[in-house]
Amino acid sequence: MSDRAYQLLEEQQKARGINLDAVKEQLKTLKIETPSWGYGDSGTRFKVYQKEGVPRTPFEKIEDAAQVHRYTGLAPSVAIHIPWDKVDDYGKLRSHAESLGLKIGAVNPNLFQEDEYMLGSVTNANEKIRRKATDHLLECVQIAKETGSRDISLWFADGTNYPGQGDIRKRKAWMQESLSEMYRALDPHMRMLIEYKCFEPAFYHTDLADWGMSYNLAMKLGPQAEVLVDTGHHLQGANIEHIVAYLIDEKRLGGFHFNSRKYADDDLIVGTTNPYELFLIFYQILLASKDNDEAIRNNVSNIAYMIDQSHSIEQKIPAMLRSVLNVQTQFAKALLINHDEVTDAQNRDDVLGAEDAVRKAFEFDVTPLLHAVRQEQGLPLDPMRAYLDSSYGKDILARGKGGASW
Amino acid sequence: MSDRAYQLLEEQQKARGINLDAVKEQLKTLKIETPSWGYGDSGTRFKVYQKEGVPRTPFEKIEDAAQVHRYTGLAPSVAIHIPWDKVDDYGKLRSHAESLGLKIGAVNPNLFQEDEYMLGSVTNANEKIRRKATDHLLECVQIAKETGSRDISLWFADGTNYPGQGDIRKRKAWMQESLSEMYRALDPHMRMLIEYKCFEPAFYHTDLADWGMSYNLAMKLGPQAEVLVDTGHHLQGANIEHIVAYLIDEKRLGGFHFNSRKYADDDLIVGTTNPYELFLIFYQILLASKDNDEAIRNNVSNIAYMIDQSHSIEQKIPAMLRSVLNVQTQFAKALLINHDEVTDAQNRDDVLGAEDAVRKAFEFDVTPLLHAVRQEQGLPLDPMRAYLDSSYGKDILARGKGGASW
Amino acid sequence: MSDRAYQLLEEQQKARGINLDAVKEQLKTLKIETPSWGYGDSGTRFKVYQKEGVPRTPFEKIEDAAQVHRYTGLAPSVAIHIPWDKVDDYGKLRSHAESLGLKIGAVNPNLFQEDEYMLGSVTNANEKIRRKATDHLLECVQIAKETGSRDISLWFADGTNYPGQGDIRKRKAWMQESLSEMYRALDPHMRMLIEYKCFEPAFYHTDLADWGMSYNLAMKLGPQAEVLVDTGHHLQGANIEHIVAYLIDEKRLGGFHFNSRKYADDDLIVGTTNPYELFLIFYQILLASKDNDEAIRNNVSNIAYMIDQSHSIEQKIPAMLRSVLNVQTQFAKALLINHDEVTDAQNRDDVLGAEDAVRKAFEFDVTPLLHAVRQEQGLPLDPMRAYLDSSYGKDILARGKGGASW
Amino acid sequence: MSDRAYQLLEEQQKARGINLDAVKEQLKTLKIETPSWGYGDSGTRFKVYQKEGVPRTPFEKIEDAAQVHRYTGLAPSVAIHIPWDKVDDYGKLRSHAESLGLKIGAVNPNLFQEDEYMLGSVTNANEKIRRKATDHLLECVQIAKETGSRDISLWFADGTNYPGQGDIRKRKAWMQESLSEMYRALDPHMRMLIEYKCFEPAFYHTDLADWGMSYNLAMKLGPQAEVLVDTGHHLQGANIEHIVAYLIDEKRLGGFHFNSRKYADDDLIVGTTNPYELFLIFYQILLASKDNDEAIRNNVSNIAYMIDQSHSIEQKIPAMLRSVLNVQTQFAKALLINHDEVTDAQNRDDVLGAEDAVRKAFEFDVTPLLHAVRQEQGLPLDPMRAYLDSSYGKDILARGKGGASW
Repeated sequence: MSDRAYQLLEEQQKARGINLDAVKEQLKTLKIETPSWGYGDSGTRFKVYQKEGVPRTPFEKIEDAAQVHRYTGLAPSVAIHIPWDKVDDYGKLRSHAESLGLKIGAVNPNLFQEDEYMLGSVTNANEKIRRKATDHLLECVQIAKETGSRDISLWFADGTNYPGQGDIRKRKAWMQESLSEMYRALDPHMRMLIEYKCFEPAFYHTDLADWGMSYNLAMKLGPQAEVLVDTGHHLQGANIEHIVAYLIDEKRLGGFHFNSRKYADDDLIVGTTNPYELFLIFYQILLASKDNDEAIRNNVSNIAYMIDQSHSIEQKIPAMLRSVLNVQTQFAKALLINHDEVTDAQNRDDVLGAEDAVRKAFEFDVTPLLHAVRQEQGLPLDPMRAYLDSSYGKDILARGKGGASW
Repeated sequence: MSDRAYQLLEEQQKARGINLDAVKEQLKTLKIETPSWGYGDSGTRFKVYQKEGVPRTPFEKIEDAAQVHRYTGLAPSVAIHIPWDKVDDYGKLRSHAESLGLKIGAVNPNLFQEDEYMLGSVTNANEKIRRKATDHLLECVQIAKETGSRDISLWFADGTNYPGQGDIRKRKAWMQESLSEMYRALDPHMRMLIEYKCFEPAFYHTDLADWGMSYNLAMKLGPQAEVLVDTGHHLQGANIEHIVAYLIDEKRLGGFHFNSRKYADDDLIVGTTNPYELFLIFYQILLASKDNDEAIRNNVSNIAYMIDQSHSIEQKIPAMLRSVLNVQTQFAKALLINHDEVTDAQNRDDVLGAEDAVRKAFEFDVTPLLHAVRQEQGLPLDPMRAYLDSSYGKDILARGKGGASW
Repeated sequence: MSDRAYQLLEEQQKARGINLDAVKEQLKTLKIETPSWGYGDSGTRFKVYQKEGVPRTPFEKIEDAAQVHRYTGLAPSVAIHIPWDKVDDYGKLRSHAESLGLKIGAVNPNLFQEDEYMLGSVTNANEKIRRKATDHLLECVQIAKETGSRDISLWFADGTNYPGQGDIRKRKAWMQESLSEMYRALDPHMRMLIEYKCFEPAFYHTDLADWGMSYNLAMKLGPQAEVLVDTGHHLQGANIEHIVAYLIDEKRLGGFHFNSRKYADDDLIVGTTNPYELFLIFYQILLASKDNDEAIRNNVSNIAYMIDQSHSIEQKIPAMLRSVLNVQTQFAKALLINHDEVTDAQNRDDVLGAEDAVRKAFEFDVTPLLHAVRQEQGLPLDPMRAYLDSSYGKDILARGKGGASW
Repeated sequence: MSDRAYQLLEEQQKARGINLDAVKEQLKTLKIETPSWGYGDSGTRFKVYQKEGVPRTPFEKIEDAAQVHRYTGLAPSVAIHIPWDKVDDYGKLRSHAESLGLKIGAVNPNLFQEDEYMLGSVTNANEKIRRKATDHLLECVQIAKETGSRDISLWFADGTNYPGQGDIRKRKAWMQESLSEMYRALDPHMRMLIEYKCFEPAFYHTDLADWGMSYNLAMKLGPQAEVLVDTGHHLQGANIEHIVAYLIDEKRLGGFHFNSRKYADDDLIVGTTNPYELFLIFYQILLASKDNDEAIRNNVSNIAYMIDQSHSIEQKIPAMLRSVLNVQTQFAKALLINHDEVTDAQNRDDVLGAEDAVRKAFEFDVTPLLHAVRQEQGLPLDPMRAYLDSSYGKDILARGKGGASW
């Protein structure tokens, strides 16, 4: 059935000017980084659920991550979080990853879990605390050098809960001061990816509240600073794909933290709440990937796709499999957009036609296409099934409860 | 200065038809319940800050709560949370409270901190878990009888994170089934206060998502079931004072959980984000308190005003002092509304005049009024100052870190 | 290609327990009412665009609506708006519709376009204005009897812009009083569908602000009063499918006004912003359609599906074609959900599996299925293409500019 | 009573380190521009209410605006909208204004009320339409030179309703191209104030959707381009005062369009929905006005305060009086913040103290202060009362209905 389905899809796409061979090649280039902390226990402020079989060490986290890559071919790197993934010897961690066919991806400093950071880390009014926070950033740059990581992902919980609690403009200056120091420590090929978030855990103001603040800071720091878009960090109604297109146009889109949300930073499995939004993000990216401007194409080709979720009621490894597969599905659909058809309709002021030309691609069932790609890559057609049929999930139960958590 | 200020305010109010003596009497009736858990450690999913001096036992929580009442005269009862406040002998807890001039207020069951409740408590698909949850509700009814509490406050974390995860309508039936059993266990003078919340910790659907669902359930259960409005549990833009007026009109407003929010369920100190909203809530309540319908006046007079916050970066007892004082301030302002003036403007289709008649009361500085009331009640004019000048805050530091938390 | 595609889909669905023959039968029962006003000019407060060829009379609107039905077989009735569609002889309008294979659908009173209603219609403090408004409602009941319409759709712009502007509870009583009088005028088979809206054009409070207020009013009026869900009338984040399931469970879901929104009541073409939401609404409806409770099944089978949009930059008839086709697509996808698979996963506490079982159906391309249905119904496979290839769109240009608008 | 009240307030403020004489001087500098269109008829998409006495010409609008200034001393300039205020001889309009003690303020181009702009003005895919739009901008620069206006306020309705409808990045380039041309036409003392808006009338994407896009564009254009903050143009939850502080810090805050909103761009009378927000905006401005950096102080001193509302159910002139008075009230309150007290609390990590130091100023009744200022300025103590007691409101009824509207 699978072959006939692919054949049919191929004919259908050919008829509308889409070459599936080219699509398959692009699909094979998709890489999605999974986060080490996504394999550990997590939860909400009301409850963290402890699951059996959760990894106890950074090494075990990487082993779990390797499973996701093994069955999908999509997840060849793992982001780490310091100090959650602090080890004595990062070379060893790196070798461990490499032995499993993985790389260590972005390094994520953690500046929100020590008592001293209660009123801010790099934006704390106390110089000593800012110093400590900056030192941690520098430490992470050093770790990245040891793990061979290109990117440092920066998310700050810094902000205030009440008007007057902090001096907004002074904090802005302190943020810039700290990140400037960090920037100078980067090797030339390294990047700082600056995340933003509208609220939580700060509930009055967040020092980097929106893309504009991250972008403006990146512009001041220099070309190695770019913006990281977490799909759950916007106010209700924000048009994320617009922001994505905008940042690409300014050549400052560094990457994504993918997850799903319906309300706040819900941190659910990516692609489960509004799959069309994910598709539309890829539409903007793929459109820009054909731009005449080489700098724009360069920006697009360096986008880091990363998962950052806090799925807490699901099985960990399957949750991550589902996540990367959902991203792949929407990426595949976006590859079926016929951009000429869209442009033609735009040029004719044909609103309905242009909208249809985009949405049409979303309506296709890309399963035969994904099967074909997996077959060519020697991967199981149904990665989730294959993983569940393996013994890995049962074997790790021996780890017991009480593994890594945050 | 204080006397002259009061005199001036009195003349000013008299000139606009407001009798400050009557206002003072109403102010003296205001009672705000504080929550035992508001004295313990709390935080966000990112970090719970452990503070020195936090109470270690339910008895110590009540001692802290007594401080708030001692300096304000506003907080004569304490809500408890089971099992956080589980003790062997509730009679002893009650006596302890009474010895400090307090009552035990609403009993709050906790159905969200055990592993079994991960996919629901009273709405869990597993009958045994529902049984356990219902038993806990019944246990809380029993405790309420022992503590002499009139109200049981019901907040459920129950809900789902994904479409399909649960059967929405079956869960609705299970909720009703469980609460019906609980309802039958109530003594005739007791009340169930049914809270609702639009999201968190469930991020797709919450079984009791809005006032309509709580209200409809209360109607089915019977007259002892009423709705509890938590000011942080609504979607952005919801007009809370409209809901309040509506529920009073249906005689089903049971009470409030007061707190402040700008984004989600931020759980900040009440009255700090948008004080006007709190004032407008009291406007609706006070307007209804003059209704011709006795049933409506009865509903109003039984409203339970309760604080429910998760202030995590502030000193605990001062945070609670500020909270009850903020409520008092807005209540006082609302008492200065001249309802005849509002009605007259409404009757003349004078939109600007009607709006002004309400907002005008908000603009008055009620400090002299509050000072007068405190003086008459033998309370310190500045309760916060008086508490901070006392040794209590320092004395409790001996409790050390690591007290009660959730 | 079409036949092979259908065959493949049929095998595929059979393998997962879905019988396409049954699905096709259900698809043939889908009826979506289009609104007469959707064929006229519309816009935003900033600009109403006048288009050439817009119908000049209620008769021409019905002719345009007939085009939508002709090519899709989906839209056999037209809702009318009074006084926009006021005619001397409603029997004539009805005959005109019937001669084109259509019925007159819901009658929509208009209580927002006269100066007198500036501060309210049925909730106006002025008794004479309330009387006039109620008389208009009664007039619409009478018209419905003449047009053979079962449903009266009630949307009220009534509300206030400022605190104090109106007495919320008095207005609530006036609303009930007016609708009670209207209710008594209904024939036994007729229904009142009570819409709600969180804001606009009133920006402080809307008298019927949410489903709870419409539902509660319907309960007081009697079994012929039900709730009408407009998909654009909720606050950001509201879970509409939850509300749908809830209302069905209470047997009070009367119908829908379909449209799309990303921000407020954007009134865009249904299915263009978040198609998954529309699918999830149908998931709840179809699940309930299999309920053991006959009353629930009855409620489901009487749901009125109606379009209510204000597409202003698109060609009118094509916009409506797209709308009904989008609804059909999501309905078709929802028909492919295997409810047993969902339930099994729920019973195993398999969160990922349950979510997948629902979303999986959304991923199928239903084009072959829709083609098959259209073929069996003697309809063009591509209704939009067929309409655009016809001369109708050009012929009506003779109507010129300046047709019906609101 | 008034004198005693002022005396008391003065003592009270002196005791906390606030010199009321200095405050009064600052109050006398406050200037709020009112918009010519705010005196005409307006409404929502559902209905524009025609009022008697609405001005029929730009000259009459200015006469009405002069009334607002006459009674408040706060509104010495009037913004104009082209072509709504198009006249043959702008010198004559200017003289007319000056004869009434007013200036012509910001010139507002209108690029949203012609059919050609349906799919965009400066971002239209059609070069001829972009040319026409740019020419209109240039025309407005020319008018500004004739009227002696420093500022051109730029709000664009440009955007799309659907994914694919337009090419987001191309439109971004066209916007920049058009505004660059306009920028070059400015005289050295003139400014472009670039507004942004998250949605409406475009419901998928707006070309200038947030402050970041306006700011980035201003940075590219040059120092005469600044950002205009309309308080109703943000997504729910946006912290406007944070944006204000941020823009001041970058020396790019050009001005405000004040109005109130609870939901979307409700355009209600400023200060009626959440007065505390307005106060907090002034807190940030006044804090920055004391900055050591002269460039920051300069930015602050050039902020243009403008009203931009669409009050449609109120009497026009009284609505504007209320608006400027509400702004004055919150400005006065913000002047009572003791910034040293705030800073001290911040430096002690005293969250509660810092919050209180800000909110405390909001709680004062500034009526005696405003009375004193008005008395010193020879203005009526109650400007609204004075206007209503004048014959102006009755006299203009002779204009009849059907005046200017949009």
